[in-house]
Amino acid sequence: MQAARLHEYTDDMTEGLAIDNVNRPEVTGGSDVIVEVEGAGWCQTDNHIIEGMWTEYVPQDLPLTLGHENAGTVVETGDGVDIVSEGDPVICHPVQTCGTCRPCRLGETMYCENDAFNGLTTDGGFAEYLHTSERSVIPLPSDVEPIDIAPHADAGITAYHAVKKAAAELNPGDHAVVVGVGGLGHIGLQCLSAMSAARITAVDLKESALDLATGYGADHVVNPSEDDVRAEIDGITDGTGAAQVLDFVGEDVTTAYAPDITAAGGDHHIIGYGGHIHEPAQALVNGEFSFVGNIVGRYAELQELVALVEQGDVDLHTSRYDLGDVNTVAEKLEHGEIDGRAVITP
Amino acid sequence: MQAARLHEYTDDMTEGLAIDNVNRPEVTGGSDVIVEVEGAGWCQTDNHIIEGMWTEYVPQDLPLTLGHENAGTVVETGDGVDIVSEGDPVICHPVQTCGTCRPCRLGETMYCENDAFNGLTTDGGFAEYLHTSERSVIPLPSDVEPIDIAPHADAGITAYHAVKKAAAELNPGDHAVVVGVGGLGHIGLQCLSAMSAARITAVDLKESALDLATGYGADHVVNPSEDDVRAEIDGITDGTGAAQVLDFVGEDVTTAYAPDITAAGGDHHIIGYGGHIHEPAQALVNGEFSFVGNIVGRYAELQELVALVEQGDVDLHTSRYDLGDVNTVAEKLEHGEIDGRAVITP
Amino acid sequence: MQAARLHEYTDDMTEGLAIDNVNRPEVTGGSDVIVEVEGAGWCQTDNHIIEGMWTEYVPQDLPLTLGHENAGTVVETGDGVDIVSEGDPVICHPVQTCGTCRPCRLGETMYCENDAFNGLTTDGGFAEYLHTSERSVIPLPSDVEPIDIAPHADAGITAYHAVKKAAAELNPGDHAVVVGVGGLGHIGLQCLSAMSAARITAVDLKESALDLATGYGADHVVNPSEDDVRAEIDGITDGTGAAQVLDFVGEDVTTAYAPDITAAGGDHHIIGYGGHIHEPAQALVNGEFSFVGNIVGRYAELQELVALVEQGDVDLHTSRYDLGDVNTVAEKLEHGEIDGRAVITP
Amino acid sequence: MQAARLHEYTDDMTEGLAIDNVNRPEVTGGSDVIVEVEGAGWCQTDNHIIEGMWTEYVPQDLPLTLGHENAGTVVETGDGVDIVSEGDPVICHPVQTCGTCRPCRLGETMYCENDAFNGLTTDGGFAEYLHTSERSVIPLPSDVEPIDIAPHADAGITAYHAVKKAAAELNPGDHAVVVGVGGLGHIGLQCLSAMSAARITAVDLKESALDLATGYGADHVVNPSEDDVRAEIDGITDGTGAAQVLDFVGEDVTTAYAPDITAAGGDHHIIGYGGHIHEPAQALVNGEFSFVGNIVGRYAELQELVALVEQGDVDLHTSRYDLGDVNTVAEKLEHGEIDGRAVITP
Ligand SMILES: [Zn+2]
Ligand SMILES: [Zn+2]
Ligand SMILES: [Zn+2]
Ligand SMILES: [Zn+2]
Ligand SMILES: [Zn+2]
Ligand SMILES: [Zn+2]
Ligand SMILES: [Zn+2]
Ligand SMILES: [Zn+2]
Ligand SMILES: [Zn+2]
Ligand SMILES: [Zn+2]
Repeated sequence: MQAARLHEYTDDMTEGLAIDNVNRPEVTGGSDVIVEVEGAGWCQTDNHIIEGMWTEYVPQDLPLTLGHENAGTVVETGDGVDIVSEGDPVICHPVQTCGTCRPCRLGETMYCENDAFNGLTTDGGFAEYLHTSERSVIPLPSDVEPIDIAPHADAGITAYHAVKKAAAELNPGDHAVVVGVGGLGHIGLQCLSAMSAARITAVDLKESALDLATGYGADHVVNPSEDDVRAEIDGITDGTGAAQVLDFVGEDVTTAYAPDITAAGGDHHIIGYGGHIHEPAQALVNGEFSFVGNIVGRYAELQELVALVEQGDVDLHTSRYDLGDVNTVAEKLEHGEIDGRAVITP
Repeated sequence: MQAARLHEYTDDMTEGLAIDNVNRPEVTGGSDVIVEVEGAGWCQTDNHIIEGMWTEYVPQDLPLTLGHENAGTVVETGDGVDIVSEGDPVICHPVQTCGTCRPCRLGETMYCENDAFNGLTTDGGFAEYLHTSERSVIPLPSDVEPIDIAPHADAGITAYHAVKKAAAELNPGDHAVVVGVGGLGHIGLQCLSAMSAARITAVDLKESALDLATGYGADHVVNPSEDDVRAEIDGITDGTGAAQVLDFVGEDVTTAYAPDITAAGGDHHIIGYGGHIHEPAQALVNGEFSFVGNIVGRYAELQELVALVEQGDVDLHTSRYDLGDVNTVAEKLEHGEIDGRAVITP
Repeated sequence: MQAARLHEYTDDMTEGLAIDNVNRPEVTGGSDVIVEVEGAGWCQTDNHIIEGMWTEYVPQDLPLTLGHENAGTVVETGDGVDIVSEGDPVICHPVQTCGTCRPCRLGETMYCENDAFNGLTTDGGFAEYLHTSERSVIPLPSDVEPIDIAPHADAGITAYHAVKKAAAELNPGDHAVVVGVGGLGHIGLQCLSAMSAARITAVDLKESALDLATGYGADHVVNPSEDDVRAEIDGITDGTGAAQVLDFVGEDVTTAYAPDITAAGGDHHIIGYGGHIHEPAQALVNGEFSFVGNIVGRYAELQELVALVEQGDVDLHTSRYDLGDVNTVAEKLEHGEIDGRAVITP
Repeated sequence: MQAARLHEYTDDMTEGLAIDNVNRPEVTGGSDVIVEVEGAGWCQTDNHIIEGMWTEYVPQDLPLTLGHENAGTVVETGDGVDIVSEGDPVICHPVQTCGTCRPCRLGETMYCENDAFNGLTTDGGFAEYLHTSERSVIPLPSDVEPIDIAPHADAGITAYHAVKKAAAELNPGDHAVVVGVGGLGHIGLQCLSAMSAARITAVDLKESALDLATGYGADHVVNPSEDDVRAEIDGITDGTGAAQVLDFVGEDVTTAYAPDITAAGGDHHIIGYGGHIHEPAQALVNGEFSFVGNIVGRYAELQELVALVEQGDVDLHTSRYDLGDVNTVAEKLEHGEIDGRAVITP
């Protein structure tokens, strides 16, 4: 089968991946599931992996088939598999877990001590077939197409995971800020609208993104190229600040908003991760705010997001590309030229 | 009456405060309470105030009587005061609150929108008498001496407040790390022992502090001058990391422990605040840990801490000084020469 | 001024209250607030008070002016009052609290140890003027009329309070059941829609109530006179049961649904209170569900509900009556002939 | 091998079980684990099963080997088993779970949709060998003997599970009541002491149980045969009531304490289950307390309890009996003649 693989780290996105001919994966264990990939979302993280930005954090053997946002149809299952069978449409949680370590027992599957991450530490879904397990697939409702939902496997649950934490802290009358209404942010904004009654302000440099935000339930929008974000939030919140800030950008300039726009006792959620946090400890003490790290959502959260999608609470804006176009997609994303989420259709 | 007042910011602790003769405060409003100060704890924050380190964060008019950790005996009350009367021994929460703003309504008295902070934004307790209100005093149990409990008014509830948040996240079998077993840390360690069944590792550069920690319930101790903190925590926790880290130091070197010693999903609590946080956003994403800011505990938490003290769960190690010795105390603290907590006895 | 007062407990609603001439209340304490009542909601609880059903639970001196759901305009304030002044439109939380007991410090104002409850333990708002305090009034947004919002002072926050607890436990994909879509239930249903993404089933004997429920966001409706509630919920939830049940009826027949329709780990909230709970302890053990008591919401929750009303998230269906019509209203309510919420306009 | 089996429901405990010769269980699936039983706790629930009291709640085929509190040594494992191997000492969680249903994904293993319960719905451990799975065994620390820890597999985690919920709601200064200091209660009391700083009152009819309670950290004890429980709790808590009540008895007389001894906002936990709850809905509304159901603790909670045992925080008082003595044990328990927990040693 054909697979888009990384052979060498590079900053040149035009030649990041190669289309290789490799063996089709097969069932070898009782809980194995083989999925014919119909859609595989391309993600900013894929660019970061190509650049070698994850080598410091996880073990990685090259060549590696990238692609961690996968959905498709089950074509083969191990003999111990109960929850899906051949022909079932599924979305694939990117992490394959053991089920028996302490984190798995707690339902905190993202902390599994024996995990493999599709397209990051094991072969992913920029290929015709994906090798995964019963522990990582979720059957799709009948009216949801794999190709339309694929990016939710990572972009979606990452946004959902952070929003779920934020929503738990938000009361009616409180304010939330969504920084960055791009691939993740536009999902997060919709989840926040569905799951809380807080007032929402969206911050983005693009007017088109802010228009989208208004359509998805933002009560206020701020464009940092035109207005001072700190002053705007101060005005909107009557000096109190935002109880929850969801930073889908994570650059130095956005993490630096925290002490000025976050309410006392509030959280600045780090979801995007291009930059750094630089802050005096005293700022966190005086304002009693937190920088809250957010990893990909857990398996059960992907079930919850699928429920939101099924209910019509979350739209996903996508554009489709052939497997052979992966480097074009990477290059376009680098220059902000992808409209919505790019989905590879192997 | 005599009061130790700050007239000018300075880095020279030998001449920080002057002993002035000022008018004794009097009741002017219905909820006013005048307390004859018996004990007033001296705090690292007093040194920071003298250095001008708080001018950026709060409004401050000089001259100002410092002293925010006060306890004593009620000598006069406004006619609307119900909960105390003349002769009652009390501990004074450092923050005087309005009771009617939204944070006060929620019990989050530290976020009061109309507050005054003893010894920081209004005159404090390094003086014979303190002007405070019914909203800020807590009657003491009969067997607790004001002079012995005074530092709990800030040092105590700051430690308690952070520990309460940490304890809520700790299960038996989990690990917690207490960084710094000084004035706040030794209180925090005892609260943690009383309020959770987690295993505790104490980290300090002084062997005497580590001995104290062992006596107060630490299961392990680590001296960074002898052993590598990261490796030790890794070994003690079997590679998982500590679910909760309480950083009573807050220097660059201690905040930098976070990504290496904090378990996935865990918190690094910022309580001490001399230094900075410098961390790539990606570290918080990959490890899903948070930097959690911690301000002084709220009024109801001081009630809870008084209950712990009454039960004998929290010892406080103090040494006593005359009002005229304030600059000596400041200077000694700067050089780490104060044994336990210094209490001024005006 | 005129006031509708209870002189004697009776089961005959046609003669429950008398219209008396009494003195207009005046400011006597620094935090007093006198409100000219514009709207005062009539509540099932008023009927219960007339019947003497609350004498076992609270102290009550007759004659007593009833009316605990009040809104109007401030006409006089004590000299310590900061948050409102003459001419301000306000809604009145029914409980007047002390602000200094432990529950008040925690923000749990409904548990105040020194409280008075309008129209239940002290004179209420079925009168031209109401004596209350700064601790119990909330200024209204400019576009909200006192007469339209009055019933939220009790009916609204009681529903909101229970829904807030329920919403905190509900994830997307979970199911909630609202039993009884009357005065409280129709508010609770709207709050639930605004604050969670759960699927909602409404249960009521009236088709008109079920139609209303559908308009307010119910995904399913069940009429117990036509279908078996247990079987319907079982089918709708695929055998799992409802994670949260909000019982606005509280009769024997509805509390008995709990073991059969509540999911493992779920809650059956008791809000209505005409009947009893009769259940073997083993049922609660086997199904691990809880019967959760719900009192009127606290002050801060009324602020949150006012925010929901201001945002347009909660409609209130009312009909208006003169002060002289109180007994007619009581009698009509007894026979289920009140459409929406009756508001007395003194 | 020999197994103690139930052939027919009966109220006569002298002939409840028969010692039968049956086939030794063998590994048939990849995750199977066969344990040689060293200790199997006898539980009040075993008497209830013999009486047929569980037929209404779970499917049960006779003959059935009882015994759900098992520990021993692994003698055989399926080829997919990673976490234990032959020779490992283990404690067996009584529930065998699927690992892939929604509750299992959430870590709520007690709500598994495809579970089997040792000694209740599948053969248990009153036998020489037990057939279980990798999902249900926990390796023991080297210094813990299987025979000493066996009852924790049910009695222990049931007590722990309820206490964990209660401890999460308890602050220093709050009061908790433990009703019944028997097999479960004496474990619960120790867990509560280790996990919270609340003040504890123990209630029991036996003076020996109350003496034990004092040794395990109870601050007060009340014997209902001598003193009025309601009046005592009122006095001890200064009229506030107990924030958390742990009812390990669950008889009509103990569930009826709830409205009088539970603080506003508090919980009456149902753990024991002989009797009924009979309460007007209005009592739950007025006092805003809850009746909280409690099932057996989940797998991860048994890990936490094993940690408490390893730390020396929880003693277990046991007496040992041969497999042939099962009916003697049942009969003695019926008459309150078992001292501590009876452990069968097959
Ligand atoms: Zn991605
Ligand atoms: Zn795992
Ligand atoms: Zn201090
Ligand atoms: Zn305030
Ligand atoms: Zn830096
Ligand atoms: Zn009402
Ligand atoms: Zn109060
Ligand atoms: Zn009954
Ligand atoms: Zn048992
Ligand atoms: Zn399961």
